[in-house]
Amino acid sequence: MEKIYQQSLALHAKVKGKIEIKTKLPLRNRKDLSLAYTPGVAQPSIEISKDTKKVYDYTWKSNTIAIISDGSAVLGLGNIGAEASLPVLEGKSMLFKALANINCIPIALKTQDPKEIIQIIKNISPTFGAICLEDISAPRCFEVENNLQDLGIPVMHDDQHGTAVVILAALINSCKVVEKKLNDLRIVISGAGAAGTAITKLLLCTGLDKNICIPVGEIIVCDKAGPIYEGRKEDMNPFKVWMSQHTNPRKVRGTLANAMKNADVFIGVSAPNLVDEAMIKSMAKKAIVFAMANPVPEIMPDKAKMAGATIVGTGRSDFPNQINNILGFPGLFRGVLDARATQINGQMKIAAAHTIASCLPKPTKEKILPFPLDKKVVKKVAAAVIKAARETGVAKV
Amino acid sequence: MEKIYQQSLALHAKVKGKIEIKTKLPLRNRKDLSLAYTPGVAQPSIEISKDTKKVYDYTWKSNTIAIISDGSAVLGLGNIGAEASLPVLEGKSMLFKALANINCIPIALKTQDPKEIIQIIKNISPTFGAICLEDISAPRCFEVENNLQDLGIPVMHDDQHGTAVVILAALINSCKVVEKKLNDLRIVISGAGAAGTAITKLLLCTGLDKNICIPVGEIIVCDKAGPIYEGRKEDMNPFKVWMSQHTNPRKVRGTLANAMKNADVFIGVSAPNLVDEAMIKSMAKKAIVFAMANPVPEIMPDKAKMAGATIVGTGRSDFPNQINNILGFPGLFRGVLDARATQINGQMKIAAAHTIASCLPKPTKEKILPFPLDKKVVKKVAAAVIKAARETGVAKV
Repeated sequence: MEKIYQQSLALHAKVKGKIEIKTKLPLRNRKDLSLAYTPGVAQPSIEISKDTKKVYDYTWKSNTIAIISDGSAVLGLGNIGAEASLPVLEGKSMLFKALANINCIPIALKTQDPKEIIQIIKNISPTFGAICLEDISAPRCFEVENNLQDLGIPVMHDDQHGTAVVILAALINSCKVVEKKLNDLRIVISGAGAAGTAITKLLLCTGLDKNICIPVGEIIVCDKAGPIYEGRKEDMNPFKVWMSQHTNPRKVRGTLANAMKNADVFIGVSAPNLVDEAMIKSMAKKAIVFAMANPVPEIMPDKAKMAGATIVGTGRSDFPNQINNILGFPGLFRGVLDARATQINGQMKIAAAHTIASCLPKPTKEKILPFPLDKKVVKKVAAAVIKAARETGVAKV
Repeated sequence: MEKIYQQSLALHAKVKGKIEIKTKLPLRNRKDLSLAYTPGVAQPSIEISKDTKKVYDYTWKSNTIAIISDGSAVLGLGNIGAEASLPVLEGKSMLFKALANINCIPIALKTQDPKEIIQIIKNISPTFGAICLEDISAPRCFEVENNLQDLGIPVMHDDQHGTAVVILAALINSCKVVEKKLNDLRIVISGAGAAGTAITKLLLCTGLDKNICIPVGEIIVCDKAGPIYEGRKEDMNPFKVWMSQHTNPRKVRGTLANAMKNADVFIGVSAPNLVDEAMIKSMAKKAIVFAMANPVPEIMPDKAKMAGATIVGTGRSDFPNQINNILGFPGLFRGVLDARATQINGQMKIAAAHTIASCLPKPTKEKILPFPLDKKVVKKVAAAVIKAARETGVAKV
């Protein structure tokens, strides 16, 4: 591990930027200049001024998104600031390009005021075909995302919905391996932030047609103060109040350890080393453990296995069963750009999750999800997203 | 001309974006992912969070700028909106990359409120090593630029200073050809907007050491209401009031045609077809005419020549004597990025102008400036800018 960190630092120092701009046209002579720049460039500008939609025909907007962070919740490192989020944003930009051929522009914001962030995104939106929000802490991320759903281009907070989609895909395939049913599962989620909230909503099929979405059996969401239950007073906000009303039907209180007793599934989207072997041992038989805190998980995979978990996944690429948004966001955004969708709705997310799961027809304990760098997955997810966008009326083409 | 416009439109429709993102590292396997993305990427993020300046060492910031427009003054086309400015911004991004290897991100803004523009640029600044403002109309462009000079990274409105630098270079070499002296010249500037104001200030050596800068003889600035003179009431603003106090010592009134009588130099940064043959004929002998309105100049070069002008330049690449910012901005920004300068000051602009001029040791009537795609010019300008930045104490490295 230490070695990977030092190698990565050296690599970042060497390249000073993991992405760069590339020109697509030659600039050898005055003719080239006349066509790509002045005077010729006046013509596409004039056409776009007459019909703004033509910006999709004559510029990079149709294939370009922004990935925007305020540095408030970077990986599992917390509020480390705008500049410190840039290596992560650049990494994701690499993945968008390599996997989905999308131009993704990192933008790290100095402000952490949701109203300012909303205003900035509204104002820079003419340039981009979609916006990916990244590493923005809860509950501010909900305010930012909710207020941008009518922008005309999709705005998705990947830490919420990308994570939720891939978790659902992982659960679908894990259920095949342990021979349990989604709607029987008792699930404990550690973390009531961006990811925890979105996972909960997707697993409960909130606002979704129950014919296309199977809600899970029971969810208990835990935060630093323990299980969230209806009537809890400590450390609440409007989003946790909603959660308390829609989860934890048995009103379990106390600690994360309490909640985990007899649970079928543990989903950690919280902080390093919160879970010990005893807690894993207290779970139901054939337990599923997704310890996703990054870079250090809630429990290391070897420990969880030793304590009896049947399936163990993390967010990391250096352990088996990586459950990483990489399987989701490239195809999701490829799909919305190609459908020129105005939103990313629940049906599109469900379609993406089932498609990701189906890309691995025979999942095993050690391999519940397809290889994250498999471009075939991206293509299939994009196709499913386009179909769902058209069926739900949010596609423009 | 018609042909160039149609060819350019077809080319833009074909490529849908003249620039794209390119990845600089491989993404073949889990090891690559671990180094470029999670978990390895946590290390540069942690280092930057401990010392924000290290963002220059581990990300693309050190070689990346944003080019930002609100679409209010695009080419000579006027206020055609954010989306319509994108083809121009992309064209300039191509030039930044091809000539100076700078990553330049087009950002078209929906707002035209200077205070909002200032706020947005402040907040997105962690991502970029410098900001190039583009196609923002006067007088709002002055407010925006002036309020961003303490941002810590250089913010330069290219329509002002890029234009002024290249005009000064063109004047220096034209003086050699017509054997006149800069400080004897009577100059008429048509246009009191972004470019006209900046050219005036640079030619008057405003705020500059007169030992390194030679002020021209006389300047009369004209706008739609004719010559600006001290005491004029019509169509004024604080910036024009300043101009009225520092130019037009003979208080010439009336029309542009009045002002042009016996002038040595006409500099047009205004609108198409404002100048006719009679006005050129009324100028002094060996007249210099820079008709820079884009894409259609104040007077077409053949007409100006026929009417007796000795040197005629335009902003366009399809006529001789292109006087285009292309000769300025790549080297200026290459220089400030390499010197990690905090501002682009007057000394740096003067140094750039003299360097551009010196790149063509023997100017002629038909060739007063170097070829705009000559990378040697970029290198020399960058070196001169770095030297001036260090001498004036605005360089950080």
